Amino acid sequence: MKTQATYAANPSFEQSFRAHEEKKKPQKVPLPPFGFKEYMIQKGNQVNKALDEAVPLQHPRKIHEAMRYSLLAGGKRVRPILCIASCELVGGGEELAMPTACALEMIHTMSLIHDDLPCMDNDDLRRGMPTSHKVFGEDTAVLAGDALLALAFEHVASNTKNVSSDRVVQALAELGSAVGSKGLVAGQVVDIESEGKEVSLSTLEYIHVHKTAKLLEAAVVCGAIMGGADATSVERLRKYARSIGLLFQVVDDILDMTKSSEELGKTAGKDLTSDKATYPKLIGIDEAKKFAAQLTDQANQELGFYDPVKAAPLYHLASYIASRQN
Amino acid sequence: MKTQATYAANPSFEQSFRAHEEKKKPQKVPLPPFGFKEYMIQKGNQVNKALDEAVPLQHPRKIHEAMRYSLLAGGKRVRPILCIASCELVGGGEELAMPTACALEMIHTMSLIHDDLPCMDNDDLRRGMPTSHKVFGEDTAVLAGDALLALAFEHVASNTKNVSSDRVVQALAELGSAVGSKGLVAGQVVDIESEGKEVSLSTLEYIHVHKTAKLLEAAVVCGAIMGGADATSVERLRKYARSIGLLFQVVDDILDMTKSSEELGKTAGKDLTSDKATYPKLIGIDEAKKFAAQLTDQANQELGFYDPVKAAPLYHLASYIASRQN
Repeated sequence: MKTQATYAANPSFEQSFRAHEEKKKPQKVPLPPFGFKEYMIQKGNQVNKALDEAVPLQHPRKIHEAMRYSLLAGGKRVRPILCIASCELVGGGEELAMPTACALEMIHTMSLIHDDLPCMDNDDLRRGMPTSHKVFGEDTAVLAGDALLALAFEHVASNTKNVSSDRVVQALAELGSAVGSKGLVAGQVVDIESEGKEVSLSTLEYIHVHKTAKLLEAAVVCGAIMGGADATSVERLRKYARSIGLLFQVVDDILDMTKSSEELGKTAGKDLTSDKATYPKLIGIDEAKKFAAQLTDQANQELGFYDPVKAAPLYHLASYIASRQN
Repeated sequence: MKTQATYAANPSFEQSFRAHEEKKKPQKVPLPPFGFKEYMIQKGNQVNKALDEAVPLQHPRKIHEAMRYSLLAGGKRVRPILCIASCELVGGGEELAMPTACALEMIHTMSLIHDDLPCMDNDDLRRGMPTSHKVFGEDTAVLAGDALLALAFEHVASNTKNVSSDRVVQALAELGSAVGSKGLVAGQVVDIESEGKEVSLSTLEYIHVHKTAKLLEAAVVCGAIMGGADATSVERLRKYARSIGLLFQVVDDILDMTKSSEELGKTAGKDLTSDKATYPKLIGIDEAKKFAAQLTDQANQELGFYDPVKAAPLYHLASYIASRQN
């Protein structure tokens, strides 16, 4: 008990300790003013340029056409931008994270191409355009996905500059884990198995966390790693990412129920008709919206540890994910 | 002309230079005596143990069952053993190369699972057993392949010990390039495009080099990288690997023409009936056999730069690939 007694006998130490702890607590701040739309456009353009360069139209032509068709189909680039924003928050330059940002979009695109296959979700429409297998045939669609997945890892390993190899290896392990049988694929498998069955809230969360949140987590975590973050900061941003990852899918569920196919650019109401479990179906639309608000708060809480001006992009990304309309 | 004159005026330098060049020339040696069968069994067992541990049967059960079903189906483990043999030739221990060795088999297995899909080769039989999609369904087969591909990179990044991160990153770039749209997938695509068409010898070589040789090249090259080889040695072993890589597929073509399905454990004569181009069809069986012998010689020539005792496993692996019966 000696240590406690020493503390008690030394109020000035206790005061400074308490003040220090107080400072470490997250501060709830109003969303700082920030030109978010311009930020998204500017970063999105940079990412699109890098993706275009990462997959040139070379021999064999058809496979590169298929890869480019899906990769450059105009997604919102949320994953790459999260990665860059996280890298910049911890003090790294955009260029340190760019190869990883591109890899994230390649992985995401691979999952969409394979997800849309006739033997999976059998979707004809994606981002308002015919799906890959509709345009290039099933065989090329499978191979385009495989090639994008392999390229993702190759691209990070070959093109990341001015980052220590230790950090590159760490990021590659994160990426691999986010896609594989403990990540994205695990979510897919449990999702497929659950179709037409009574699904518990915990299974639904498992599906969402793995199918969607893991890759968003990898985006933020890899950005922080490439930007030079220490372990504490990496884990703090991981928590932020987990919240917005689940948030992303909850909002997706809500949108699927409330929007038309035209507004979404993909087949809407599909989750409803195909008996897929969703948050609105399990807990009702109002509770789902409340849950989304709660996840946004959790994410913002983690950002309270950072300078609000520097963290502005990540605050606004959380808010954007919460309030997006498609 | 000053330099030449200097050389001429200095016969002792010229002599030593010539002697040095002579030493650098590959020496044609008889295949050194070596317990190759025991070597293959011992290394194969080590690889199987490592693969078993790399993919434990965990939740979600079905996807891990599917991954293990194809991965542990008893292949000859040629790629992993090449990787280990190359690592040991340049002075590295087996354990340095083992995660990469496993990754190579994961990638190879992924390519087989996806290759067998109804939308690709539509094969029912592989290694004497029903193919993945026949047992687990097409959706799980696609996802098992994706998961194995992602795990390959994750496994190397997470589990390679006592190798500098610089080398791990270099190996990961090699691996990615071997699979993607400039490697294995490129070969697949051109193969599919060529079906039923008149195919030139150069296109056939393109298909074989990309579909088969690239991954064998990655096996040998990554083994050398992990084992600590210098750049000259890596490129020397790359040449060896390119020869045995093409050799592997030429022998495959010959076997497909001369063996029954039962002997091969897969549907034989398929290349013949499906109008696929093969070496025996393009240049005749005798010329194909001559070409195989020539490729074996080329491979052995590169090994002439090494201590023949240390290079024994790679000599015998080339000979094994040349003379295998299934």
